[in-house]
Amino acid sequence: MIKIAVDLKGADRPQTELVSGALAAVRETDDLFVYLCGDKSALEPYIEGTERIELIDAPEVITNNEDPAEAFKNKKNSSLVRGMELCKNDPDVGALVSCGATGAIFVSAMMMLGRIGRISPMLLVELRHADGSPLCIVDCGANVDCRPEKLVDFARMGIAYMKAVGVAEPKVGLLSNGAEDKKGNAVVKAANELLRAEISAFVGNIEGTSVLTGNADIIVCDGFSGNILLKTVEGSAKAVLSQLRAMPGVESAVGDRINELYTLYDFNSQGGAVLLGTRLPVIKGHGAANAETVRNIVLSAYRLAKNGLNAKIEDEFAAKV
Amino acid sequence: MIKIAVDLKGADRPQTELVSGALAAVRETDDLFVYLCGDKSALEPYIEGTERIELIDAPEVITNNEDPAEAFKNKKNSSLVRGMELCKNDPDVGALVSCGATGAIFVSAMMMLGRIGRISPMLLVELRHADGSPLCIVDCGANVDCRPEKLVDFARMGIAYMKAVGVAEPKVGLLSNGAEDKKGNAVVKAANELLRAEISAFVGNIEGTSVLTGNADIIVCDGFSGNILLKTVEGSAKAVLSQLRAMPGVESAVGDRINELYTLYDFNSQGGAVLLGTRLPVIKGHGAANAETVRNIVLSAYRLAKNGLNAKIEDEFAAKV
Repeated sequence: MIKIAVDLKGADRPQTELVSGALAAVRETDDLFVYLCGDKSALEPYIEGTERIELIDAPEVITNNEDPAEAFKNKKNSSLVRGMELCKNDPDVGALVSCGATGAIFVSAMMMLGRIGRISPMLLVELRHADGSPLCIVDCGANVDCRPEKLVDFARMGIAYMKAVGVAEPKVGLLSNGAEDKKGNAVVKAANELLRAEISAFVGNIEGTSVLTGNADIIVCDGFSGNILLKTVEGSAKAVLSQLRAMPGVESAVGDRINELYTLYDFNSQGGAVLLGTRLPVIKGHGAANAETVRNIVLSAYRLAKNGLNAKIEDEFAAKV
Repeated sequence: MIKIAVDLKGADRPQTELVSGALAAVRETDDLFVYLCGDKSALEPYIEGTERIELIDAPEVITNNEDPAEAFKNKKNSSLVRGMELCKNDPDVGALVSCGATGAIFVSAMMMLGRIGRISPMLLVELRHADGSPLCIVDCGANVDCRPEKLVDFARMGIAYMKAVGVAEPKVGLLSNGAEDKKGNAVVKAANELLRAEISAFVGNIEGTSVLTGNADIIVCDGFSGNILLKTVEGSAKAVLSQLRAMPGVESAVGDRINELYTLYDFNSQGGAVLLGTRLPVIKGHGAANAETVRNIVLSAYRLAKNGLNAKIEDEFAAKV
C-alpha cells in the first residue's frame, strides 16, 4: 500500500473540493491510501463508506499572509504540520500533497522531514517538450543564489525524478546564454565544467530557444533563472495564443485547438511543483487547484512514491565519485 | 544630413544583398546618407547613379571564427574597423550597422568609440508587447555578471532608447522571480532598492508571465537573464505555433495567420540588437540578414540618430542625483 498525506487547508477552494479530488485518485487505484488532514468532523459525511481514506483532525490553518517560520512554530494543529507528522511517523507514507502556503511548506519540510544528506532542497516543475515528451526544470525557485556545486545536485535530483516518471535515460542540459561550453555567467561556466566531469548524461548548454524543442529532458539552472524560464514559457505561449485568437476568422475556425494548447501551457492548472531533497517529496499544487487538479497531483505523488523516487535520488548521489 | 556607416562584410549573405538593403533605406528618406564599407571596386556598379551613398574600400573581413581582440588589432583594413573609423572621424555619422561578428563589434566599439562616461555598454533588443506596443530588454547579453548599480544604468539607457523611438513616458520593470519588491536573487534585490530610489519611472518587479502583457516598457536585467528571457520568448512562441499548426485542420484554416505571428517572434529577422553606452550606438543585425532586414536596420539606425539617442542617454545620466 502506498500512502499519501494530503493537506486540505490553506488553498483557495473549500476542503470538500480537495477531498473529492483525493477520492477520485483513490478510486482509480487499488493500492493507494490517502490521509486527509483538515476539519475531521465536518468532512466525515463526504468520505463515508470509502476505503483507503483516513481523516486526520487539524483545526488550524497556515495562510500565505503569515510568517512561515512563526506559523510553523505556533500552529502544531495545522493541516500542514499534521501532514508532515504523518510523513515522519508512518513509514508507509511516500509523499505529502499541499495546495497551501509555499513558504510554510518549505520551512516545515526542512524542520520535520530534514534533508537527504547535505542536499539543498529545490523545486522541480514538469512540463512538456513541443513533441509531448516530458521535460523538467530544476530549480524553479527555491535557491535563487547558488554555488555551482548546487547545480550538479539539481541535475542528480532531476535524473532521479525523470527515471521515476519512466524516462529511462534522461539527458541533462544547463540553461545558458549560448550553446558553447564557455558561455554563461560565472556560476554557469563553473557548473558546466562540473557537469562535464560528473554527470555522464550531460549534453551541454541549452539556450532559451531550445528548451521546448531541444534534446535535454532536464534543464538545470539556479532558482532565479528557472523561475524566469518557467514563467516566460507560460507567458509567451499564452500571449501568442491570445494574439492569434484575436485575428479575424481564427476563433471560429480553431478556437478549440487554441483552448487545448492554452490549458497545456497553464502550468498552475497542470500539476504541481515538486519539492525534492527533503526526506520525502512534497507536491505543491496551486492555491486555486480544483478537484481535477488535486486528483492529478495525488496520482502523481502516488506514482512517484510507488516508483521509489527518493531511493532513486539516493542512488544518484551514491553513484557520485 | 544623418550619416550611417554600414559594415558590408562578415555576414552570411553577399555584400550586394546588404548594399541593396541600404539603397532601399536611402530611397525612402531624403536626409539619410550611407557609407558602405566593403570591396569598393566590385560594388561600384551596384550603386552607380545613386546619391547619398559612398563606398569605402575595406579589403579585409573579420569572421566569427577568430579571436575578436586579435582580429581587431591585425585587421585595420577590415570593413568593421573602417566603419568604426568613420564613426570616430566624421561628426555627422550617427550610428554603425553591422551583421558581422558580435565579439569583434563589441571590442572595436569599446576601443575606437569609447564609452559614455563610466557606463558599461550593453545590448538592447526591441520587441513587442502582445498588444503591439514597443518593449525592450536591457541587457540582452553583454554583461552576464553585474553589480546592482549596472542595472540602474541599463534602466537609464532603456529610457533614453524608448524616448528616441517615440514612447514619451516609458515605464521600467525589473525582471524577477516574484512581483513583490523583496523577491529576487541578491543582485536583483539590491537593484530593486536602487531603482526605487533613483528611477521615477520604475514600476516594480516583473515576472516572466508578465513580460509580454504587463505594464513595463523596459525590462531591466543582467545580460545572462536577459538573453534567456529573449530567447525563451522566441522559442516558446515558435514552439506553440508549430504545435498548433500540426493539429488537424489548423494549417488550411489559419496557416497564414500563424506565419504572420511566427515572423513577428522570429527576432533575428525582425531587426537588430543595439549596442548602447559607447559614444555612438551600433546596430547588430543577424548574420543571415537579407536585404529587407538590412533596410529595416539602417532605417532604425537613421531614426535613432535623428532622434538624438545618444544625447538622450547623456540627459538621463545627467539627471542622476
